[in-house]
Amino acid sequence: MISKPVTIKDVADKACVSYQTVSKVINGKVQVSKETESRIWQAIEELGYRPSHTARSLRSKRTHTIGYSWPPTPQDQENPILDQFLQSMFLAAERGGYYLLAFPHHSEYGNLLDAYSELIVTGRVDGFILSSIDYDDPRINFLLERKFPFVAFGRSNPDLKFPYIDVDGGEGLAMAIHHLLEQGHQRIATLAWPETSRVGNNRLEGYFRALASAGISISNEWIARGEGSFSFGYSATCHWLDLPAGDRPTAIVALCDIMAIGAMQAARDRGIRVGTDLAITGFDNGPMAKYFTPPLTSLHQPVWEIGDRVINMLLTILEGKDPDPYCELLLPQLIIRESSIGWK
Amino acid sequence: MISKPVTIKDVADKACVSYQTVSKVINGKVQVSKETESRIWQAIEELGYRPSHTARSLRSKRTHTIGYSWPPTPQDQENPILDQFLQSMFLAAERGGYYLLAFPHHSEYGNLLDAYSELIVTGRVDGFILSSIDYDDPRINFLLERKFPFVAFGRSNPDLKFPYIDVDGGEGLAMAIHHLLEQGHQRIATLAWPETSRVGNNRLEGYFRALASAGISISNEWIARGEGSFSFGYSATCHWLDLPAGDRPTAIVALCDIMAIGAMQAARDRGIRVGTDLAITGFDNGPMAKYFTPPLTSLHQPVWEIGDRVINMLLTILEGKDPDPYCELLLPQLIIRESSIGWK
Repeated sequence: MISKPVTIKDVADKACVSYQTVSKVINGKVQVSKETESRIWQAIEELGYRPSHTARSLRSKRTHTIGYSWPPTPQDQENPILDQFLQSMFLAAERGGYYLLAFPHHSEYGNLLDAYSELIVTGRVDGFILSSIDYDDPRINFLLERKFPFVAFGRSNPDLKFPYIDVDGGEGLAMAIHHLLEQGHQRIATLAWPETSRVGNNRLEGYFRALASAGISISNEWIARGEGSFSFGYSATCHWLDLPAGDRPTAIVALCDIMAIGAMQAARDRGIRVGTDLAITGFDNGPMAKYFTPPLTSLHQPVWEIGDRVINMLLTILEGKDPDPYCELLLPQLIIRESSIGWK
Repeated sequence: MISKPVTIKDVADKACVSYQTVSKVINGKVQVSKETESRIWQAIEELGYRPSHTARSLRSKRTHTIGYSWPPTPQDQENPILDQFLQSMFLAAERGGYYLLAFPHHSEYGNLLDAYSELIVTGRVDGFILSSIDYDDPRINFLLERKFPFVAFGRSNPDLKFPYIDVDGGEGLAMAIHHLLEQGHQRIATLAWPETSRVGNNRLEGYFRALASAGISISNEWIARGEGSFSFGYSATCHWLDLPAGDRPTAIVALCDIMAIGAMQAARDRGIRVGTDLAITGFDNGPMAKYFTPPLTSLHQPVWEIGDRVINMLLTILEGKDPDPYCELLLPQLIIRESSIGWK
């Protein structure tokens, strides 16, 4: 006896729902209660129903898959926002019936674009999420030219028009400066990235703006530019702390936590107390920031919200609509801890 | 005039390679030079050739996709190995012509298994990588029953037979204990996880073994079990440090860095110098461990190798072969820093 092929109707009968509900649940097109969904998947499994994803993709011309790639963190550093960003995107994608396809981020542009090209050409993904956006980021023009859907976490040059969510790093730095001005600081140095860094320049703009609006002239000597590492933060701070007392900065704002942690170590090695003798602030509010001695004041990015929103913007685009807003800057939050208070 | 459809032969001619090479590159079945690969993708793009992935999947019954999900890190903690583990898997998968599909890790087992079930039933993935393996992990039996390919980073109960790579955490703890014994310590406490923790018990076994083989009897009072958090490490250490001087432990081995960091803070708050007065070691060697004061001795897991090997084992299984070895324990490396040396 040959058994009859299992149909979607059989599944619906067994799960006590309509066949439209089964179809919609399989295709991620509807939200039902967790109990109903569980019952449907159980029925599908027990009956051995096989609604092939690939066959459905071929019919719908949709893969229900979003591509995402990010540059690996150097082994001696942490990526304090990676897990939250990924998890928030997974959940937002799941709600829309989508999955994330992750692929390696090759450091050479040619190889990097090949990876995007391959995913497009082989019909593997319906769109991309980009992050770590540079000036003239080649991925932006590559995808714009192909009219291939994408949303970015991060801006690029103002002349490039594309949908993004970014954190207003400049406003973040301005918050840190205002906080330091309130504590009485006037000589505020900054540990910054090179001038080619788009994120660095966005953040630094707030440093210039906040000090200028307080009528404080800025000395070039107090802007140290280098790679965002512990050792750069350490050595630049040593240089400042070796200046005659009257010429030293009394506060340092760093564009990332790890440079601030290097600065704290430089102070400690000279017997200078962080907080009371020298204020230091970071950016990113990594999970470890609060456990340093003293705990580090830092700027917290709304990572969960960003992950959720970039996916929802992309899903809107995939439905053929324009996301509203098309671009948006979210404010970071200044988390004040002992490293920047108690100055005497 | 209707244009002739572009064939794989046209692509091969334009890229000056054989059509077999084009086919193999598209299917990720061969390694060619980056220049050749780039030339092929360029030709595919310029000619507008569309080797649909879904059509190929339907023919080959392969999705060339591996599913992976992991529990989100609590927002106040870091996952010190996530980025390296993911990146090493991406590259190993890419070399085999595979991609990783990431999906959310639901904390309820029912919902968690539904997610795996959905990916199997809809033919989305060819296999899974599992991590964060518990005792009687329901995913193991679920996949074994379905004979669905998977490889785990982590063990479970000894009676469950499945392919895995794990770190020999017990041997790691034994290394830490030997190091402390060499420094002259005899009273060594441990910050451990609850008895239900599979990873915790694997690690703790080395604590018991190393102390027993040194002829040191173990006091139950020196085994503190709780969640792997800063605050648990802090409070358990405070309790020990409040004992009369002769009853206090002189060294503490923690099963994870964050508990060790809590212990360091407890010592500092009591004016006890970490290293010279009290030795402390961690586990994971997170990127921040070396930046604490003093830098934290910790056990480093060979994460890159693990990511590479679990993928290669899975690819072997997908080719219908048994990986050799089928299970393996890799040794962690003890990174000795100031938190555990200089005891007087």
